[in-house]
Amino acid sequence: MLRKLFFISLLFLGDITHAQDKDAAFIRKLADEILTNGKAYDHLRDLTKNIGARLAGSKQMYQAEEWGYRLLQEAGSDKTYKQPVMVPRWVRGGTDEVRAILPNKEEKELAVIALGNTIGTGGKPLEAPVVLIRDFDELEMKKDQLKGKIVFYNYKFNPKFVRTFDAYGDAVKYRSRGPSLAAKYGAVGVIVRSMSHSIDNVPHTGALFYDSAYAKIPAVAIGLQDADWLAASLEQGAALKVVLKTNGHFLPDVQGHNIIGELKGNEYPDEYITIGGHLDSWDNCEGAHDDGAGVTQTIEVLRALKALNYTPKRTIRFVLFANEENGLRGGRKYAEEAKAKGEKHIFAVESDAGGFTPRAFSFDCSKEQLDKAKRWLPLIAPYGCNEFIAGGGGADISPLKPLLGTPLCELLPDSQRYFDVHHSSNDVFEAVNKRELELGAVNMVALIYLIDQYGF
Amino acid sequence: MLRKLFFISLLFLGDITHAQDKDAAFIRKLADEILTNGKAYDHLRDLTKNIGARLAGSKQMYQAEEWGYRLLQEAGSDKTYKQPVMVPRWVRGGTDEVRAILPNKEEKELAVIALGNTIGTGGKPLEAPVVLIRDFDELEMKKDQLKGKIVFYNYKFNPKFVRTFDAYGDAVKYRSRGPSLAAKYGAVGVIVRSMSHSIDNVPHTGALFYDSAYAKIPAVAIGLQDADWLAASLEQGAALKVVLKTNGHFLPDVQGHNIIGELKGNEYPDEYITIGGHLDSWDNCEGAHDDGAGVTQTIEVLRALKALNYTPKRTIRFVLFANEENGLRGGRKYAEEAKAKGEKHIFAVESDAGGFTPRAFSFDCSKEQLDKAKRWLPLIAPYGCNEFIAGGGGADISPLKPLLGTPLCELLPDSQRYFDVHHSSNDVFEAVNKRELELGAVNMVALIYLIDQYGF
Repeated sequence: MLRKLFFISLLFLGDITHAQDKDAAFIRKLADEILTNGKAYDHLRDLTKNIGARLAGSKQMYQAEEWGYRLLQEAGSDKTYKQPVMVPRWVRGGTDEVRAILPNKEEKELAVIALGNTIGTGGKPLEAPVVLIRDFDELEMKKDQLKGKIVFYNYKFNPKFVRTFDAYGDAVKYRSRGPSLAAKYGAVGVIVRSMSHSIDNVPHTGALFYDSAYAKIPAVAIGLQDADWLAASLEQGAALKVVLKTNGHFLPDVQGHNIIGELKGNEYPDEYITIGGHLDSWDNCEGAHDDGAGVTQTIEVLRALKALNYTPKRTIRFVLFANEENGLRGGRKYAEEAKAKGEKHIFAVESDAGGFTPRAFSFDCSKEQLDKAKRWLPLIAPYGCNEFIAGGGGADISPLKPLLGTPLCELLPDSQRYFDVHHSSNDVFEAVNKRELELGAVNMVALIYLIDQYGF
Repeated sequence: MLRKLFFISLLFLGDITHAQDKDAAFIRKLADEILTNGKAYDHLRDLTKNIGARLAGSKQMYQAEEWGYRLLQEAGSDKTYKQPVMVPRWVRGGTDEVRAILPNKEEKELAVIALGNTIGTGGKPLEAPVVLIRDFDELEMKKDQLKGKIVFYNYKFNPKFVRTFDAYGDAVKYRSRGPSLAAKYGAVGVIVRSMSHSIDNVPHTGALFYDSAYAKIPAVAIGLQDADWLAASLEQGAALKVVLKTNGHFLPDVQGHNIIGELKGNEYPDEYITIGGHLDSWDNCEGAHDDGAGVTQTIEVLRALKALNYTPKRTIRFVLFANEENGLRGGRKYAEEAKAKGEKHIFAVESDAGGFTPRAFSFDCSKEQLDKAKRWLPLIAPYGCNEFIAGGGGADISPLKPLLGTPLCELLPDSQRYFDVHHSSNDVFEAVNKRELELGAVNMVALIYLIDQYGF
């Protein structure tokens, strides 16, 4: 494939030059540096095992900020700084519990975890009958039966999507908007099938967003095995009640920070290139893939460039964003300040889709820009990303586009294992493979280097 | 990428026709069948957990044969049969042990496993000084110092190879030929750094091949952490001795079988297409990736074709090969019988590089054939294999090429995690991801379908 594309470029694009030979050689050196002396894996172990979960506003958020600041400095930033941003502080407030009460009074404990941003049950258990809802169409059909009930959304990941993010995109509305839509019809609580197709019973959290038009009701995610059991029981006509107890609540916002390292450009210092990941994680996991991987890869890109004594033409920002998971305040703040200062941001790339083996970059940019990027495929494909596709950038960098018109990009690692771990206690250091993590950094640094050399 | 290649085909090859639309639709159905109703993962659990390790000649080899025969029948073979083949029966004969004796008489137990096909130490421990050898050049330089010594080959996997099989190909000669080359200079035993770049200390076995010109000496593989410790100790000048005890030996050959299912072609029944994996595994693991994955994918390809009521034009053989690991007798027998019967084998494909996410197919065929295959890329790339490259076929099918001129092909899954598990106790069911395994079968069945429709 590589050879074929290379050949096509030669024939039709005429842009395979000595410059590309030079670029190929330098990218090879960057890759050798990362694959031989890489620090991302050790950094990830440190972040996940010594700090761990680091939700916005938590004590560990501040520890992670200090950790990131120190590592960006050590990796060789010209300038390292903290960009203040007020972040929400949602706390789980205790253990989440759901028990199903069968008609014969037997009880079964279900594997659940409260959704992020949910309210609690007011310090006492909430007991109500359960109604099985497969999708929003069925919600509408049954809207008159939901008053005082707990709605159980059992919408499944569609296994036919090859890219699992498509299955997530298809299903996640039941988590994010499902609670308010159930509240609209008088439901008093929600249980959502976890956003996963894993084979275990571990529940997966993630943010819900209340519609202010309706009452806020508590919501939890349920593990897939228990979801199947609950659905089968209800389909068989069992009149199940559920006892739900959660304790989520918001404390006042606190000041967190985006942690930023900078390499000053020596030709076009006023043109900014951003590379980043997010420093926060959910509170129920080590946040190794989401997004310890992106954070440690970002630091590794800086380290590799400095190890090769690279002086960029443009100014490169290495950003560890605050509060992606339940607010995106860090990403918004970064773009707002850039706009306020009149900065020119020519490109931004994020790694926030796991530390798995790299396969593609998706670009949110013009067709001309994507065509330009595709001419670099022969230089990057040998390291894993052999598809450059039109698509989204990462969440944290997304505000740069509407505010500054910045073209966006995201690293797309292989997605098959991602939703086995995403937002669950399975997202631990041990689920990350050293070389896969490093190759992600290799593909990122190759792209950053080319953008820096040739603009975008 | 897909869209681009598709476009290129339209412009320059003129072969995007209604036939391709029909083919794309049928491949989509095959994929949906496997991703929705796939049995490969359950079959793999059964093979690994209920039968487990199944080295040639073992009791479990026979259990696996019965298991494979039954599943090929259940999946819908027109004909299922066992092809007898005499296989070697090497047995480990007990626990392998290596202790390092330090100059101060302290002892350290090292994580080792005897190499497959090795002789033992004659029922008693072998004690000898150790000489560190980095590579064969150093072996030659130190050839006068090896008499009566144990040679420790510490040649490392080169992390710069992006495809880990290249690192394996570079290093494996120290395991396969290293013992005899050390014996040539009077060494009495060999310790080889495990063929891996994992971060743990688990030793990896694999076959050695004695050169009949030299004495047979016992050989073990050592875990990477202990290899690093041993090398560091020797580099610091410590006069280390090692006590080595292994018990490997051969029992007389026994009769095993290739297990074969067949779908009869209705247009060209005398043209054979082979798809397979190997049923045997090393004795120290469940053989989940190597090669339970290939075996269960092979059965799954048959199951999916039958589930869609597909009648092939050509005769398709689904082969579970015997004795790949330490003899390749099954693969040889299959090709020899095909030649003896004058069969016309137009294509063979193997899955024996792990059950990881599929990325490529490698082809050992003419340039014209590879070009023909590449025109199918738009049909297969959406499921993972977006590179068709020139390279090897699998080991078991390899004798078909010299004997019958058959073009060969191998599924290349992502290789980053493979040598963490390969030939070690890490190769267990839990290391296989359900969707990755299934996608491997999807890519295989798509290729088999196209070969069947259009020949090769």
